Amino acid sequence: MAIKKIGIASRCDRPEVLQMVRDIIENFHSKVKIYVSTSTANVLGIEGTPVEKMRDEGVELIITVGGDGTVLRNIAKMKDPLPILGINMGTLGFLVDVEPEDAIETIEEVLYGFSYIERMRMDVFLNREMLETATNEIAVMSAKPAKIIQLEVYVNDCLLDEMRADGVIFATPTGSTAYAMSAGGPIINPRVNAIVVVPVAPFKLSSRPWVIPSDSEITIKLSDNEKEAVIAIDGQKSYRIKPEDVVKLRKSKYPARFVRISDTCFYERVQRKLS
Amino acid sequence: MAIKKIGIASRCDRPEVLQMVRDIIENFHSKVKIYVSTSTANVLGIEGTPVEKMRDEGVELIITVGGDGTVLRNIAKMKDPLPILGINMGTLGFLVDVEPEDAIETIEEVLYGFSYIERMRMDVFLNREMLETATNEIAVMSAKPAKIIQLEVYVNDCLLDEMRADGVIFATPTGSTAYAMSAGGPIINPRVNAIVVVPVAPFKLSSRPWVIPSDSEITIKLSDNEKEAVIAIDGQKSYRIKPEDVVKLRKSKYPARFVRISDTCFYERVQRKLS
Amino acid sequence: MAIKKIGIASRCDRPEVLQMVRDIIENFHSKVKIYVSTSTANVLGIEGTPVEKMRDEGVELIITVGGDGTVLRNIAKMKDPLPILGINMGTLGFLVDVEPEDAIETIEEVLYGFSYIERMRMDVFLNREMLETATNEIAVMSAKPAKIIQLEVYVNDCLLDEMRADGVIFATPTGSTAYAMSAGGPIINPRVNAIVVVPVAPFKLSSRPWVIPSDSEITIKLSDNEKEAVIAIDGQKSYRIKPEDVVKLRKSKYPARFVRISDTCFYERVQRKLS
Amino acid sequence: MAIKKIGIASRCDRPEVLQMVRDIIENFHSKVKIYVSTSTANVLGIEGTPVEKMRDEGVELIITVGGDGTVLRNIAKMKDPLPILGINMGTLGFLVDVEPEDAIETIEEVLYGFSYIERMRMDVFLNREMLETATNEIAVMSAKPAKIIQLEVYVNDCLLDEMRADGVIFATPTGSTAYAMSAGGPIINPRVNAIVVVPVAPFKLSSRPWVIPSDSEITIKLSDNEKEAVIAIDGQKSYRIKPEDVVKLRKSKYPARFVRISDTCFYERVQRKLS
Repeated sequence: MAIKKIGIASRCDRPEVLQMVRDIIENFHSKVKIYVSTSTANVLGIEGTPVEKMRDEGVELIITVGGDGTVLRNIAKMKDPLPILGINMGTLGFLVDVEPEDAIETIEEVLYGFSYIERMRMDVFLNREMLETATNEIAVMSAKPAKIIQLEVYVNDCLLDEMRADGVIFATPTGSTAYAMSAGGPIINPRVNAIVVVPVAPFKLSSRPWVIPSDSEITIKLSDNEKEAVIAIDGQKSYRIKPEDVVKLRKSKYPARFVRISDTCFYERVQRKLS
Repeated sequence: MAIKKIGIASRCDRPEVLQMVRDIIENFHSKVKIYVSTSTANVLGIEGTPVEKMRDEGVELIITVGGDGTVLRNIAKMKDPLPILGINMGTLGFLVDVEPEDAIETIEEVLYGFSYIERMRMDVFLNREMLETATNEIAVMSAKPAKIIQLEVYVNDCLLDEMRADGVIFATPTGSTAYAMSAGGPIINPRVNAIVVVPVAPFKLSSRPWVIPSDSEITIKLSDNEKEAVIAIDGQKSYRIKPEDVVKLRKSKYPARFVRISDTCFYERVQRKLS
Repeated sequence: MAIKKIGIASRCDRPEVLQMVRDIIENFHSKVKIYVSTSTANVLGIEGTPVEKMRDEGVELIITVGGDGTVLRNIAKMKDPLPILGINMGTLGFLVDVEPEDAIETIEEVLYGFSYIERMRMDVFLNREMLETATNEIAVMSAKPAKIIQLEVYVNDCLLDEMRADGVIFATPTGSTAYAMSAGGPIINPRVNAIVVVPVAPFKLSSRPWVIPSDSEITIKLSDNEKEAVIAIDGQKSYRIKPEDVVKLRKSKYPARFVRISDTCFYERVQRKLS
Repeated sequence: MAIKKIGIASRCDRPEVLQMVRDIIENFHSKVKIYVSTSTANVLGIEGTPVEKMRDEGVELIITVGGDGTVLRNIAKMKDPLPILGINMGTLGFLVDVEPEDAIETIEEVLYGFSYIERMRMDVFLNREMLETATNEIAVMSAKPAKIIQLEVYVNDCLLDEMRADGVIFATPTGSTAYAMSAGGPIINPRVNAIVVVPVAPFKLSSRPWVIPSDSEITIKLSDNEKEAVIAIDGQKSYRIKPEDVVKLRKSKYPARFVRISDTCFYERVQRKLS
């Protein structure tokens, strides 16, 4: 095997997912060293390794078993993310390319050597302190459902827009097919170096999504000093913000990495997921 | 004067609004009997009357001073709403037709006699208990910002749609120019007997707004048994709901009533507000 | 048989459609008198009857074989349309409810007696002369592709909007799931007495679809005196108009009629077609 | 003066535009050599120079007087376009930054030296023969208004989508605020190297705009062999195409160039035009 050490991380709440993890371990533990994430290991009653430590252990790729959420949560744990191979045991997923019935065979092939694609991520700062790195999107939403908030969005110190809306989504190309798309944003080929800014239910009817350079520095402020908002990162973590807070977004130095497993082109892959 | 008794209700947090209330009282207290709402009266240091009691006192119309929120809150207090004349001291308002500089003159005219238009409202039931009556809309939204909920919407026992979305808005024609419009809904002439159903950031890209008969009985259930939702009524009140809860909406027996103060047609009035 | 006389009309360009017509004739000619439309009869080499004469002959319903286009074209031939039963041999169709494999059986049942639903149509007038009656929609479009036109749309003499757009669609509820939906309009339950006005690619970003009462008189004028437009009716017929022309639309006295063949509700039927 | 030779091109149908041209000539003919475009010169009764020859004459920039159409038409005449300075005498224009009252003063400043920005253009090929170069967009539209066409769009030999629609727009970032925006496309910062693909009134409700790399080779074919289409380039020129034709789009080697006259940022400039 060209690959010596792999990691596994998974959802822990569904028996068929855990069974898949066991199958993978059984099939490959004699060929490669396998590191299982702490939470999955706990449920299986075996020894685990935190995902954030796996790079130091020399792990070369991480197999996730679950849906897009599982992929996003595990990438978020790593400063400089290892390549991910996602086994799809969720519903529709744009980040999980391997169907369960193909899992063993695909992993076998990957262990002989693989290439990966890099996808930009965004660092999120709250009052200059770094909070998280997002793979899909950062949404700044009203803390109270159905209550409009007022936001100022600056790009490199220019006012992009002053919005009254349920919120606003800042998505990478990878995230353009996730929450941003539901809110009316375009689909962006990941080869385009861009971030898409999509208002959610904007009061101003002429509001439109904006596609801006990926190296933009984005600043978000609440301009109504009574209402609170929430920063939601990849639909996984959220942070409460107050009117005086300043949120900044910047392209991360460390991209997400995905094991390349097929040569189908981006457009056809998206169409297949959408139909 | 043809009119003998009027009510006044207002925002209480802004000096210029309270000054307008004082002006109205000063101008008309010798001509009609004036009942001031409890909260406004408290701030002014005078005797007040709850809005919900005004009909029993023989009040013939209520003057609101503020924005659309002030109108909506006060209509909501009345089972069988008195006609409202809205003085606009908010920002853009679709329910407040009188500009402050015209207030005294318009009220003077109205006191000689007025006609009103009726606008349908919707009763909201939670597990068969009536919660509120909405003039603009009922929004059933995810309790957690940026977290999708799964909803089943039934109309007269037919499944309209199973939605995965931030939420869904059910608006009267009056409310079609409010939150529903921000979420992408059409503008509905109030003479059309209809309710518009507008999903907010729906996961399914082929989702569209639906315009359904106003006499429809609408039932909403959460189909994901882990996530909670919020019912927001006219953007004023909200109620938390759990997966097992059943929400029903039905056209109210009691419409909202608005003093007719001009003959400009619906379309031109909307265009003027939008531009 | 409760029904004594039926009509048949069909597409004439596809062998399997003509075979279906032959099958229907063969199965039912001994039970009811069958009138075949002139164009279909010509292709089959039998005697035909113009669809527009069928009511006078005592025909009680017309079976169409083809898609929505076949239904629309044949309804358009009748001043006071007979009930239609559409056999679906096109692609997706909202007006054709019977699949080919169920055709004979369904017709058999219908011949024992049937009920029908009525759907509003719109009369189109050009300079006071009546042109056609539309079942789905009237579209007023730029005569030159990708060249914007400027239109004034009046409803009962009020200016609804002055539009710069590729064109504007006026659809009945029946037509709300056709061209109007592609252009961004809402889905309208046919029980709602309304017309939906949908701009196509409007220059003004705040433009929205409007839902207006079905008894509205609509007037359309070209306000740019250099560009020509086309009135397209149900996607079937089109008429060129010049800047000085005046187009008027009004609810027709004569509705379309469709044989009711199932009790599935409107919402579920639409969802099935959309998915 | 740092600049020695300038060109002028203008609309020819409006007196105030021609007066502006005369004013510019009068103010600057003693300072720089002025070349007037043939059509404008004809109307003014002076000697003219074809815009396409101006680069050879050593012209350093072209002043256009009119609207966006004037700018687009004149850029289209040049293989390797000279920098344009647009005096705005049309309606809303995204390509004309100088208001008439500032024209003389701005030109004066520019003649002391200027910098320019480059904006990508797209070459259009019909069956391998180059037709035109577009600055804003190429729209492939149904030749018959309100009649859907069926298109296959390939990007680098991958099928992006098979569309049934009124047509499809391929816009540069510069064109993203023109026709593409009316059809629902996002606003794209010109620093993003991308093309936006926007379907117009697509039959498939899940259709979305796509943002693809600017170096993509795009191929468009009509997949219905009965209907004809029109290629419209920058809303200025159009070409009829037949089902067997193949249209290709590719980033042009020669960008458009615009004289930089202010330091206001892209977002604020767009917002000002939109509001």
